[in-house]
Amino acid sequence: MAKTSVRNIKLTLAYDGTRFSGWQRQGNTDNTLQALVETAASSALEENVELIGASRTDSGVHANGQVAHFVTNTKLSVAELRSKINENLPADVVVLSAEEMPERFHARYNATGKIYRYHILNKAVPDPFTRRYNLWVPESLNLTAMRDAAAQLVGTHDFKAFSTGKTKKSTVKAISNLKVECAAHEIIITFIGDSFLYNMARILTGTILECGLGQRKPEDIPAIFDAGERAAAGFTAPAHGLFLDTVFYE
Amino acid sequence: MAKTSVRNIKLTLAYDGTRFSGWQRQGNTDNTLQALVETAASSALEENVELIGASRTDSGVHANGQVAHFVTNTKLSVAELRSKINENLPADVVVLSAEEMPERFHARYNATGKIYRYHILNKAVPDPFTRRYNLWVPESLNLTAMRDAAAQLVGTHDFKAFSTGKTKKSTVKAISNLKVECAAHEIIITFIGDSFLYNMARILTGTILECGLGQRKPEDIPAIFDAGERAAAGFTAPAHGLFLDTVFYE
Repeated sequence: MAKTSVRNIKLTLAYDGTRFSGWQRQGNTDNTLQALVETAASSALEENVELIGASRTDSGVHANGQVAHFVTNTKLSVAELRSKINENLPADVVVLSAEEMPERFHARYNATGKIYRYHILNKAVPDPFTRRYNLWVPESLNLTAMRDAAAQLVGTHDFKAFSTGKTKKSTVKAISNLKVECAAHEIIITFIGDSFLYNMARILTGTILECGLGQRKPEDIPAIFDAGERAAAGFTAPAHGLFLDTVFYE
Repeated sequence: MAKTSVRNIKLTLAYDGTRFSGWQRQGNTDNTLQALVETAASSALEENVELIGASRTDSGVHANGQVAHFVTNTKLSVAELRSKINENLPADVVVLSAEEMPERFHARYNATGKIYRYHILNKAVPDPFTRRYNLWVPESLNLTAMRDAAAQLVGTHDFKAFSTGKTKKSTVKAISNLKVECAAHEIIITFIGDSFLYNMARILTGTILECGLGQRKPEDIPAIFDAGERAAAGFTAPAHGLFLDTVFYE
């Protein structure tokens, strides 16, 4: 009987990643978002909540739309649940929405795609109000070169050179869309793909930026794929410009 | 001969006021913006810089367009001057521009008007990224009532009730424009006036907000002017929602 009363809750979260060691829990009492939200939810619901996140955002990376799920016996409505968890969270982390899902829903395994966005401020002077949320690049950037680079990177490739850390899994990934947009000195690079390797969005951004700075040519990008070595690709753009924007489900 | 080489420099500054005790210097080594920028400019120019600001923004108040001036013997161009001072400033304070002015220009005395903006986030959940720069109000706000209140407050009045602290000067001030705008859950109250009393923009905001929350009626505002007592007006909205936006000169 208890089994049938178990509910599966999907949370959509926004957080300022500045002071956190990323999403993924590293112990019971650590400085990760997963541990923080688990503790807040456990206090709010007075039961032991285990949270599964869609994306293991790195240390310093932000999210507008991280998704996580947990199972619970609570009788609270999803609106009450959201507001009770938020009452237990600090100001830099917020539950945007809570939804009731079918029992089989899994935040990580069911994710069919993600949007990441990298924010660059391309201006002679930095901006004190958005300084935690973009990379300030005072040098002139060649947008055409950045877009040409993006065109070389979109599609299905072996992105081994665009990742750090080792994995036994395939490094072949599909980026279905890679846009470089600019408005009022802000350049936003949008990555839409099924899944991403460790540091991939940041190394792609670094490589695109080096093209924009004239340090590298877009037409040399196929050789990076061929090399398949981290050293062949560009620098790892800093974490604080990156946002996990959206997680897609079918 | 030395006299003729003296230059008068106007700085336009943006700062995140969060960690500062306001603009106005309180001693030689204190936590004010004036002291910080004076120290940065003195280091950059290798001479003792004394800065005069247009507005004494309160503790925690931000600025997009604070103006200050100083006299100097430096031979640096204004572009070099800006970049050298910025190199000596932390990331939450930035010189947006430096301009050469006639000798008689005075940032405070020549100011003919100012724009202040108060930012409110009117949404069920707060926003982790703008939390330092707006007041989060989850309750439903009646925009019509807020605009009716603004219409009662605009114009030339004795704003004694809308100020804290004592002054021997006149408390009659002219607000030439007072707008309440709303877009995507963000409400911005814009105050344009010749000059403002201590805490005036924040008490006006608190009074307008109380009208929006239904705790006070716009038609009761004339009685606040008549009372001329701080207790008659609304609460002092917190500093972190307020921006000094623009300082006007003829």
